[in-house]
Formats: sequence, C-alpha cells, structure tokens
Amino acid sequence: MDLHILDHRLRVTSISKTGLEQYTHPLIKLIFLRNRTRCKFFSLTETPENYTVVLDEEGFKELQPSEHLQVEGSTWLPLNVVSNGNASSSSQSVGVTKIAKSVIAPLAEQHVSVFMLSTYQTDFILVREKDLSVVVESLVEEFNIFREEGGESVPVHSQDACNGLQRNGREVPHATVHPVLIPENQFCVMSLDPDTLPAIATILIDVLFYSNSPREGASIDQDMECIKFFSFSMIDGYVSLVMDTEAQKHSSGELWRMVRIGGQPLGFDECGIVAQISQPLADSDISAYYISTFSFDHALVPEEDIVSVTEMLQAQRMSS
Amino acid sequence: MDLHILDHRLRVTSISKTGLEQYTHPLIKLIFLRNRTRCKFFSLTETPENYTVVLDEEGFKELQPSEHLQVEGSTWLPLNVVSNGNASSSSQSVGVTKIAKSVIAPLAEQHVSVFMLSTYQTDFILVREKDLSVVVESLVEEFNIFREEGGESVPVHSQDACNGLQRNGREVPHATVHPVLIPENQFCVMSLDPDTLPAIATILIDVLFYSNSPREGASIDQDMECIKFFSFSMIDGYVSLVMDTEAQKHSSGELWRMVRIGGQPLGFDECGIVAQISQPLADSDISAYYISTFSFDHALVPEEDIVSVTEMLQAQRMSS
Repeated sequence: MDLHILDHRLRVTSISKTGLEQYTHPLIKLIFLRNRTRCKFFSLTETPENYTVVLDEEGFKELQPSEHLQVEGSTWLPLNVVSNGNASSSSQSVGVTKIAKSVIAPLAEQHVSVFMLSTYQTDFILVREKDLSVVVESLVEEFNIFREEGGESVPVHSQDACNGLQRNGREVPHATVHPVLIPENQFCVMSLDPDTLPAIATILIDVLFYSNSPREGASIDQDMECIKFFSFSMIDGYVSLVMDTEAQKHSSGELWRMVRIGGQPLGFDECGIVAQISQPLADSDISAYYISTFSFDHALVPEEDIVSVTEMLQAQRMSS
Repeated sequence: MDLHILDHRLRVTSISKTGLEQYTHPLIKLIFLRNRTRCKFFSLTETPENYTVVLDEEGFKELQPSEHLQVEGSTWLPLNVVSNGNASSSSQSVGVTKIAKSVIAPLAEQHVSVFMLSTYQTDFILVREKDLSVVVESLVEEFNIFREEGGESVPVHSQDACNGLQRNGREVPHATVHPVLIPENQFCVMSLDPDTLPAIATILIDVLFYSNSPREGASIDQDMECIKFFSFSMIDGYVSLVMDTEAQKHSSGELWRMVRIGGQPLGFDECGIVAQISQPLADSDISAYYISTFSFDHALVPEEDIVSVTEMLQAQRMSS
C-alpha cells in the first residue's frame, strides 16, 4: 500500500460556542466562497463543547486571534493511505478500521500522537510535523511513502530505516482507558458535489451558525442522551458531511452511531487513544469513521454493530 | 388617495465598512433566515462611506452595540401612499416623483425631516414618531390617512386640522442647495420572490459581505467615477434590490442612473432635501427612486433622462 504525506500544513483550532458569531464572516468565506480563498483543507466539527476547525495556513490566516479562538501550537501534516489494489487485506470494512493495524498501531507504539479526521471519501491521519521522521521510520516497512509537493508525489525513504526504532522490542505504552459515551443519535455520512453547495447554503448556514440556541427545559443530562454533533469538511474539492439524521430528514443509506471517547478533554499529547478503539474494531472487522476534535474523540460505527461495539468496549474497560 | 402609517417602528443605523464583518452573523439571519427572526422591515444599503441599515425593533435587537454601529436617536415610522384608482394624477411616472407634490413638499413646508426609502414595489416615507401629529395635520387635507395596527387599518383624523398649520401662510424654508455627484454607473432595480432567495444566497452574500476589498491602484477619485452602491430590502415579505449592472450581468429592463446629493454628510435634521430634488423631477414628470442613507441621499432616474436631469440640477445650482 501507498502512504501519502499530503501537501497541506494544518492548524488545529477551537472556537468557543459563544465566539462563533464573530467568526461567521471568515467561516462562510471558507465554506461557500471558494473563489475568494486559497484554503484547500478545511474541516469544521461542532460538538457540545466547541467548534473544532482544522485548516491549512491559507485558511488559518482568515481567523483573527481572539479570546474565543484556541490554537494548538503545532503544525500538523495529513497522511492518507491509498490502497493500490494489491492490498492483501480482504476486509470490506471502511474507515479507520482499515488502517488500524498498519498505521494507527505502529504510530501508537512509537508514542506518536495522531489527530484523526475521517471523511466520506477517505481517512486523514494528522501527525505533528516534528514527528514526521519518526512517522516515516515507523511506517516505511509497511508502505511505499510519498510526499506530495506542488502536485508531484516524491518517494520518501527513511534516513536510516534499520536504525533506532525497535518495532518489536519496545513496549506498547499502557494507555489510559478513557470512559466512553454512546449517545442515542443516529448519524449519516454524506458526500456532496461542491457545485451544489450554493443550493443548500442557507440550510447549511442555518445548521452551522444558528441552531445553537439551547432548547428550553433541556438539562445537560437530557441533552447528553442525544449529542450535538455536526461535521463539515472540504478537502481538495471534496465535501463530506456528518449530520444527525434529525437534521437531515431525507437521509437514506447507512445509519451510524457514535462512541464518544473521553470523560475529560483528551488534549493532544496522549498517544494510543485511536489505537485503543480502532484495534478491537479491526479485530471484529467493524467499519468506523473516526473524528478527533479539540476536546474529545468520536468513532462512528454502523447502527447494526452498536450493541457488539458497546459490549466490546465494556469488556475493555472491565479488564483495564 | 390613501396614506398609510405602517405598523413598524424603525431605527436608522449605520455600520462602518470595517465593522461589517462582526455584523455578518445577525445580518445573514435577518436577510436569509426568515424563520429565525420576527423582523418584518429590513433594508441594507451599501455606499462608499458605510452600510445603512434600517430595521424594525425586532431586527434592531439583533445588532449588538459596538464602536462600529451608529444609531440615529429617533424612532421612525414609515408612510406609504396607496393610489386607490381615483387619483386625478395622469402621470405615468413612478417613485418619489408621484408623491413629490402631495407628500414631500407639504412635509418640507412644515419643516419635517424625511428619510426616503424607495423600493421596487413602493416608496416609504419615513418620519420621526415625534413629528407624527404635524405630519397628519400637513397631509390630512390631501389624503385619507390610516394607521395600521395589528393588521387593521384605523382611520386617523387630525386632532384639529384647521388649527395651527398655515399651509399657505408659512414660508417655505430656503433650503441649502447641496452639491450633487453623478457617477457613471448604471443601476437596475429588481424585485425578487423571497422563496428564491436561498438559490442566490451565496451570490448575495458574496456581494454584500466580501466584495469590499478595494481594487488595487484605484484612487478615491477614480472610484468616484463609479460609485459603490447596493441596496437590499425585505419589507413585509417583499424583496427589492438595487444593483450596479456590473454586479448583475444578466440585467434586462430599465437602466437607472444615480444622482447623489450632498458634498458633506447630510445629517438627519435638515428638511427639504428630498423636496429640492423631487420637485423639478415632478415638474418634468421624470420617474425617480429615492434612497436616503446615513450620510447621503440618492436619486435614481431613468438612463434616458440623465442629461436633462443634469441640466436641471445645474440650473438649480446656478440660480441658488
């Protein structure tokens, strides 16, 4: 299989719920007015806590600093696995499950933090730029690695692949097992022709920027039975949406349920969180999208698998 | 003819050019998300100086105070003339011309300041609430006056119509004759089914909120040959647009040229400005839309009449 280090230098940011209003102007530009921006990698995910915005440096320039904007300090690079048809895997599963053993596990073993961003089209594994050499060394045995630069794919060879990394000698860190929350919502994951974005602009704008008024009488506990979650990404011209089926009434197709990982905000430095969830899913060949945000991680699994996934995660928590 | 005092209490505000960004959120709500607001009277006009926003109290609540928002201190009420078919006027002209002699002139004589807002559908004459009794007394001879209250039209009778107002005895104030500017642009005035707003939302959003980047190399003098002017209103469900034909490429129908009134910002207290322009237009039966903004007034006259209007205004300025 091929692994591509994509030509985007990304920032991971968070906009507070109360601060969204003042970022409406740049966000609408980034989402709907492609002619006015050179941003090629943009993702916005609403959770109950905040809005996570991941975007390239061109996009990041549009966000004025303020008390409402938190910016993770690193530059992140997106990795993308391209199955070239010769993959030995017979798995029909999609998403993070497909790369759990080949990418996620080795990076966790090498203590590399990852920020996952699954979309309808593919899965992006974001790693810190400063970790790149470790990443390459961890994955060079399994993959043909290419670095994309100005439209060209340049092969990357590990400086010294047999050098430091003791793939089998090193202990897999005994990661903290985080509590999980499994809300009642059903989600759909959709792609969208970007040329049709104008036609649904007011609907999307309404969902993104104006649907945040809390329902009266709903306590936080009640809200947590259903979780507010909405994700939009436009990456290299491909649009992907994750929406609650309540917001997208006409959904047909697969339904997905969410596992939210983390009782307290997870931060960016712990490694192995994605591995902890994706490993058992891969063992059972259960498809999963995986979306990291500023505070928590989110796995989406098929509706029909949620019972077995719940049991699996309970067992994992019991044994830890 | 009937004159209706409409059931809207309006504020006249101005948003600075640099401040528009932070008002994007409430303005998009007011323009595109009718289900989220109870605002029924909304008008936004961009000029080179600022954005004039006229809106009812429900809409005004959406605008957070800031250094970028100026608010005229008064509450304004919109008047609207309804031709009931028996009108003796044989004029085919439209807009402010039709009401120049019957409304504009009498109000100027009584020193009542008006703020004009022509739309595709009709012309609104805004007067200060505190001037209402004078307004009624000035116009009660000419019109059947109704006050709209909760969907009902209630006849209004002057408290004492024969009382104070010396219609013919009082001197018409010798108003300052303001310089005018006649830019090169051509404008079109359009109505729009509000249900089609979503379909053009991104185009309108682009024009309204993102087209303000000054062209490089263009000095202010050069810019003044063509003036930035865009007006959008949604009043009781009717949408009206005034756009530069450059922005609206597919325009068919009548073309309009602009006369901008005022060398210095006009303020809100001077009366007779509209009368000064509309009177000679009415004498020559030339149609005109008239749009007041926070800083200047703007008359739009048919392209084919601009030469005679220019001569007329020059003569007026020579004789004053």
